[in-house]
Amino acid sequence: MPNFFVKKLYHEVLLDITPTHEEKKREREVVARVLNELKPHQVDPILVGSTAKDTDLSEDKDIDVFIRFPPETDLPTLKLQGLKIGKQLFEKLGAEYEVDYAQHPYVKGTLDGFKVEIVPCYKGDKIKSSVDRTPQHTEYVKKRLQEKPHLKGDIRLLKRFMKAQNVYGAEEKVRGFSGYLLEVLVIYYGGFTETLKASSCWKTDEVIDPLSHWSDKKTLKYYFTNSDFIVIDPVDRDRNVAAAVSRQKLAEYIIHAREFLKNPSKKYFYPEKKQVKDGETLKKMLKSRGTFFIAFKFTHEKLGENPLYGQLRKTESAIQGAFEDEGFSVFKTSIQSDEENTSIVLVELSVWSLPRIKHHLGPPVDAETRHQMRFHQKYENENPYLKDGRWVVDTQRRYTHAREVAHKIMKEKAGFGKRFRQMKLEILCQEEVVAAGGCGWLKHLTQYL
Amino acid sequence: MPNFFVKKLYHEVLLDITPTHEEKKREREVVARVLNELKPHQVDPILVGSTAKDTDLSEDKDIDVFIRFPPETDLPTLKLQGLKIGKQLFEKLGAEYEVDYAQHPYVKGTLDGFKVEIVPCYKGDKIKSSVDRTPQHTEYVKKRLQEKPHLKGDIRLLKRFMKAQNVYGAEEKVRGFSGYLLEVLVIYYGGFTETLKASSCWKTDEVIDPLSHWSDKKTLKYYFTNSDFIVIDPVDRDRNVAAAVSRQKLAEYIIHAREFLKNPSKKYFYPEKKQVKDGETLKKMLKSRGTFFIAFKFTHEKLGENPLYGQLRKTESAIQGAFEDEGFSVFKTSIQSDEENTSIVLVELSVWSLPRIKHHLGPPVDAETRHQMRFHQKYENENPYLKDGRWVVDTQRRYTHAREVAHKIMKEKAGFGKRFRQMKLEILCQEEVVAAGGCGWLKHLTQYL
Repeated sequence: MPNFFVKKLYHEVLLDITPTHEEKKREREVVARVLNELKPHQVDPILVGSTAKDTDLSEDKDIDVFIRFPPETDLPTLKLQGLKIGKQLFEKLGAEYEVDYAQHPYVKGTLDGFKVEIVPCYKGDKIKSSVDRTPQHTEYVKKRLQEKPHLKGDIRLLKRFMKAQNVYGAEEKVRGFSGYLLEVLVIYYGGFTETLKASSCWKTDEVIDPLSHWSDKKTLKYYFTNSDFIVIDPVDRDRNVAAAVSRQKLAEYIIHAREFLKNPSKKYFYPEKKQVKDGETLKKMLKSRGTFFIAFKFTHEKLGENPLYGQLRKTESAIQGAFEDEGFSVFKTSIQSDEENTSIVLVELSVWSLPRIKHHLGPPVDAETRHQMRFHQKYENENPYLKDGRWVVDTQRRYTHAREVAHKIMKEKAGFGKRFRQMKLEILCQEEVVAAGGCGWLKHLTQYL
Repeated sequence: MPNFFVKKLYHEVLLDITPTHEEKKREREVVARVLNELKPHQVDPILVGSTAKDTDLSEDKDIDVFIRFPPETDLPTLKLQGLKIGKQLFEKLGAEYEVDYAQHPYVKGTLDGFKVEIVPCYKGDKIKSSVDRTPQHTEYVKKRLQEKPHLKGDIRLLKRFMKAQNVYGAEEKVRGFSGYLLEVLVIYYGGFTETLKASSCWKTDEVIDPLSHWSDKKTLKYYFTNSDFIVIDPVDRDRNVAAAVSRQKLAEYIIHAREFLKNPSKKYFYPEKKQVKDGETLKKMLKSRGTFFIAFKFTHEKLGENPLYGQLRKTESAIQGAFEDEGFSVFKTSIQSDEENTSIVLVELSVWSLPRIKHHLGPPVDAETRHQMRFHQKYENENPYLKDGRWVVDTQRRYTHAREVAHKIMKEKAGFGKRFRQMKLEILCQEEVVAAGGCGWLKHLTQYL
């Protein structure tokens, strides 16, 4: 149990982050308007998410409404109707809205300061698409919190903690902990402090099975092959609730949990504000690193957040790979987007200039003869020689400067995210990169450097 | 069996490389003088090597005489007496001589145009030092050649072939095939062509056990752990006759064997003469590679050939390692010595300039806490951060140019051969390296570039 000082700390934070009665009232009104508006449609609307579970934070004004279609509806109809109903709703209520993509496309808009999402799904126990589980998740958490209502505060504390540490959110932008995942953890470990304590000892390939759905946890790594960190969904033993959590965000969370327990303080619940440096200062800092910077600046139409960050990361890794394939060394890369029309992949190189000649390794002398023949035919003009039992040629490197590779990457766009292949693309080098974006970009560079 | 054309070729080469009667007579006279001179001493002299076996080439004027001490002699006495007797012999006969080192020190000098080596060893069947086997080797080969005298020509052909391809000689300078090794092979395979045919299919981890001393060849790799290529000594099942053969020389031999069989020609028996390029041409060629050259030039007293090349190679690998440890990329290295007073390690770099900052990887977040603590204490001023679940710092690189590393290497001499640590050492960069040595060096550079 936390000591007096820590209890006082939790109390103060909770006072600050728990929605007031006034807020709750306004929230209920918006929900009522939305549900009322949905009545005429042949869909069964249900309030899900933290609002439904009473685990929302006062600054979070998210209202998630799932509209449930009969199981016999075909998927194209569900998608089409879902979008149509969503759009109609916001139009009728005179609100701004846009379409984003998760599993399906869905509509989100703003009503009275609340972000409202209208997500189509299937009704019934049979899970036909991954969002169909959300109502079950809401149900599970609500039930547990009816039994132990004090955990609501613990969930709010962990959510705020994770938000401040920038590890909250399963979406592509963050690749961190979903609200449901942290609720499952708090319910399983029995509180905020208890969760942090357990987390601080986690391995980065931890396997957690809260309801002991599986008799042997060890084999689960072979079942959920795409993730290291596994938390079995209490409502579905075949689902990893932590599938979206990147190793990076997991590690950051573990470290913050440790640090907090060692020295609990309010600052862990409030994001640190860093003074953004001006362009001239950034240019100087950038130059002083002695590395070589190349920014790939994409100009585009507005994209949904999930496809935007998903494809931006894909593009980042394709760009890094292209430099490395040509023998250059990438020191670090990073991505930033204003989420409107400019997205940037920044590449910092520690080796950006290479001699014209390079070694090219061939087969060993005791490899199959045809492999050796092929190598010799290909490089007959370049005098293959032997080195430690292997054929080698000193052949011509195609690109001797990273700038040339950057232009090749720009031309070929190999491995880029689908939408990124069509975007307008510019290359900026060295100090020029500071001018690639607006103030969000300067903030990003301040953090990077 | 070789066809008519090939038989004719062999015949012509043999005519050229087999010592004439006249040569043999002179050789016998020198041997007689040496043996006569050794008579008064309490040692049992024996003629060993190719002269004794009648497998010598006409241009090779090597006479190896082993002087055998009683088994009860202690090693220091054997070494001391061995040297003393050797020196006295050459002094008495008024010949130049010098001391070289293999297993023991020994004396070598020149008599009537023949290189004579006087090597001390133990008499008797019990092997007390590795040279004690040499008389047994001579005995073995002589016996086999009495049974099949025609193999003498095949041995001479293979020896000449290997010499021309620069893979002959077990000494440190070459790290190739010893005379005894190639004799064992020709006896085992039954001829020159037969040996080449077998060799052209060798793996670089071939195991050959000519007299089937071992029931299972597979396990021998674990017994002779220091070599990939193993040929069991017919006179000693615990010895690898091929221990000195480097992977490089083995591979070169295999390839030449293949090429010769495909297109047999006289040129394989005569070393290719390459026109040495002049300094100005070499400077231009060197510059055009776009790499960075650093030569380490050692000035020294005359050293025995074996310690010289052994320690020079050790020094070469220490220098390469030192550059790589600091993050620079070595393209190739090579060594050259005039075997008098100048030895050179040449380093060609493909990355020779690096930014001041570098990544330094620390422990993962789920490693033992004390490892993480130690990392944090060490780098607390450098803001450790997380990358894919591991601690990382961007820390200061000590050396940003290979030239600085070269000076550090020159100062520390870490890992250098023992004698090389005391030598005078200069560093030459880029085009300067052409001036590092004499015409042997220009020849070496011509081959290198």
